Amino acid sequence: MEIKELYKEYKKFVGKSVETAGWIRNHRVSSNVGFIDLSDGTTIKNVQLVYGKETEDFEKITHLHIGSAIRVTGKVVESTGGKQDFELEVEKIVLEGDCPEDYPIQPKRHTREFLRSEAYLRPRTNLFNAVFRIRSLAAGAIHAYFQSKGYIYMHSPIITASDCEGAGEMFQVTTLDLDRVAKEGKVDYSKDFFGKKASLTVSGQLEGETFAMAFSKIYTFGPTFRAENSNTTSHLSEFWMIEPEIAFCDLNGLMDIEEDMLKYIINYVLNNGKDELEFLDSFVEKGLIDKLTKLVNSQFTRITHHDVIKLLKEADVEWQFKPEYGEDIAREHEKYITEYFDGPVFITDWPKDIKAFYMKQNDDGETVRAVDLEVPMAGELMGGSQREDDYDKLVTRMKEMGLNPEDMEWYVNLRKYGSCTHAGFGMGFERLVMYLTGVENIRDVIPYFRAPNNCEY
Amino acid sequence: MEIKELYKEYKKFVGKSVETAGWIRNHRVSSNVGFIDLSDGTTIKNVQLVYGKETEDFEKITHLHIGSAIRVTGKVVESTGGKQDFELEVEKIVLEGDCPEDYPIQPKRHTREFLRSEAYLRPRTNLFNAVFRIRSLAAGAIHAYFQSKGYIYMHSPIITASDCEGAGEMFQVTTLDLDRVAKEGKVDYSKDFFGKKASLTVSGQLEGETFAMAFSKIYTFGPTFRAENSNTTSHLSEFWMIEPEIAFCDLNGLMDIEEDMLKYIINYVLNNGKDELEFLDSFVEKGLIDKLTKLVNSQFTRITHHDVIKLLKEADVEWQFKPEYGEDIAREHEKYITEYFDGPVFITDWPKDIKAFYMKQNDDGETVRAVDLEVPMAGELMGGSQREDDYDKLVTRMKEMGLNPEDMEWYVNLRKYGSCTHAGFGMGFERLVMYLTGVENIRDVIPYFRAPNNCEY
Repeated sequence: MEIKELYKEYKKFVGKSVETAGWIRNHRVSSNVGFIDLSDGTTIKNVQLVYGKETEDFEKITHLHIGSAIRVTGKVVESTGGKQDFELEVEKIVLEGDCPEDYPIQPKRHTREFLRSEAYLRPRTNLFNAVFRIRSLAAGAIHAYFQSKGYIYMHSPIITASDCEGAGEMFQVTTLDLDRVAKEGKVDYSKDFFGKKASLTVSGQLEGETFAMAFSKIYTFGPTFRAENSNTTSHLSEFWMIEPEIAFCDLNGLMDIEEDMLKYIINYVLNNGKDELEFLDSFVEKGLIDKLTKLVNSQFTRITHHDVIKLLKEADVEWQFKPEYGEDIAREHEKYITEYFDGPVFITDWPKDIKAFYMKQNDDGETVRAVDLEVPMAGELMGGSQREDDYDKLVTRMKEMGLNPEDMEWYVNLRKYGSCTHAGFGMGFERLVMYLTGVENIRDVIPYFRAPNNCEY
Repeated sequence: MEIKELYKEYKKFVGKSVETAGWIRNHRVSSNVGFIDLSDGTTIKNVQLVYGKETEDFEKITHLHIGSAIRVTGKVVESTGGKQDFELEVEKIVLEGDCPEDYPIQPKRHTREFLRSEAYLRPRTNLFNAVFRIRSLAAGAIHAYFQSKGYIYMHSPIITASDCEGAGEMFQVTTLDLDRVAKEGKVDYSKDFFGKKASLTVSGQLEGETFAMAFSKIYTFGPTFRAENSNTTSHLSEFWMIEPEIAFCDLNGLMDIEEDMLKYIINYVLNNGKDELEFLDSFVEKGLIDKLTKLVNSQFTRITHHDVIKLLKEADVEWQFKPEYGEDIAREHEKYITEYFDGPVFITDWPKDIKAFYMKQNDDGETVRAVDLEVPMAGELMGGSQREDDYDKLVTRMKEMGLNPEDMEWYVNLRKYGSCTHAGFGMGFERLVMYLTGVENIRDVIPYFRAPNNCEY
């Protein structure tokens, strides 16, 4: 019986024997009695095993090491006082796998740096149990949300010969023998696996649009890659993205969806991840649950980039970066704006020169129908836009930005074959998990992080 | 209003005006009346628009091209006879995006080869609408199944420095400038992005095991890669895999899960993909729905590899490949076995020399606790095993197979730090989609296929 089930149903089993299995998290022995904290990872909670002189193999049990895997038979007893609701009076313990005393994960506080260096063991700690459980719940919520609304889950290709944004450093994918390339002194892509240069995708959006033009509503949820040399707490070389794309939808409709989706995910996690959030609220980010609850009850503000700059200029603040019309905004500005409106803010209609080629141009000739969602304490959580649906405007803009429309004929053709108003956004999954857990280093919210000079496991 | 919703609720709207939008699939005009088949992709069904001389802009509407995107306002009218339940009497049509007459997707039968060459347009056909909708439903079912049972969804790394099976050709991932490598005549991995050679994963299993040792039950669902030079209808260079891993679970428990999961997915698709399955049953695989219904009602057989070989040897069949103890079985054998038992068959306890190093060794010294699931008309749909949980046996076997345990210290350490009985399996997602849809070429069940010399989009 799983420990999670046991917690749900222990009242039914009081006075009865149950079987469970797990790993020893802590073990305290006195002369006549011993206590074992057992975890099977199905919940963040441990179950306490109690044994005494009268227990079969008392002596042997006292020597069980922390980290060992055991199977237990024990009688469910309601606890009197103490933190547990119940405990198990041990009837029998079978050792499945021992664990040496130099086991790196001991019942004490480990630094996150240390745990990052033992990443394959860190999910055995309470912190990472909570983080990866919330991550899993959030992913489940995302699929549940889009599936229930009839979106088609589309697997965008990972290896690609296109470069979405015309920017973004990409990883090359090859089967060429590099030693041979070095020896022969030339690169012959005709001999490479795909017969041409190929890379890892930086976004599934463009392919996503092709599916939106057939199914009306699609979403992707897959890994994306950036070969940027940034060793920071907020960048990964490999991360997961959600990229919905919706036909017959404009920028306002898109913001409705972003807001609805985010509130759904957070509600789902609040409802299904109570124990984990309480732990994270106590030990990682004080006020986490209030922060999340406030968000689901808030109304998101919608304001143009122009009006944001105006507001920032009028603010009585000594800015490190001076806000300017036509320019991007800095972290300090994002922070000010979300505090000013005391909640999430959609900033729309950005200067076209700092945004991607595929965004719908406004009639002013200066701005595009882009939207960034700024969330208090999270910064930019989603970025999206209405897409340019006019063939000529798209092609002209691509050329202005140094892109060759012929390299993406299939993409521009979407504007030739039944083009329509459509919009989409991208959300970095790890950014979301950081927000949901309060964890501040992005390397701590993904099982095995990839960064410059870091590719362990 | 989406066409899917309209089909569900049209009775409520009879006699009333509704608005919808979509793409013109077919258009027939006579002198006084016109018929448009409109699709928005939210269902495989079209809605029929009817207009006549009295309709606003009659003349203009008659010239609307196939493939165009339009918005329509029309009155819901119950159909008398014909195939539709209802139709829309057009009140107003607004053209969103025209489509030239040389649009490649016309209302006629296109070959799959042709559609593969226009892969970005093929989801606009009924066949691919059905296929990718079933694909999405199946993915949704998989997440719903595992999430509801408390499994943790784990994102295994895509870029890796380990090679799971010690086999399988891998794609290399690099940021080295190959022209420079050629020019300088040497490869310096210290200058590569990760400071060492890195590749695309062939399986998330080994990393999945690290999480199973913390959460008891996990699953992965992500892309995996094989750089094999096989241009067949059943291989892809990039495909999606589901890899659950369960602690405190033996081979019998694993088979229970495999059977339960497969039946759940198929039931889910039968319940939620009726229209699509009916279409596929009519036009792709006659008897598809019966095949799937039979599977969910069947009892899966469990038999050892040894007994399978015995059975094959005793069969009165002229084999192309002679069945032998200690050897793999061929397609013709798989087919015979599933027909013999008239249902899915778990074949267990395979000769160790044809299986991977991490599979649990049986006491006979000859076989391992592996299991392949053979499904009628699908062949091998899942492969799994109980994992070797004994440190010494694992290390010895790795050395016998030419692997260096030190290269995967973290993996072997799982057998040192609280090892336990555990098991897991892998299911290729595209193989499953082929089975669910009856489509026979694997390139037709993934949005954009990757194969030798094929990397379009």
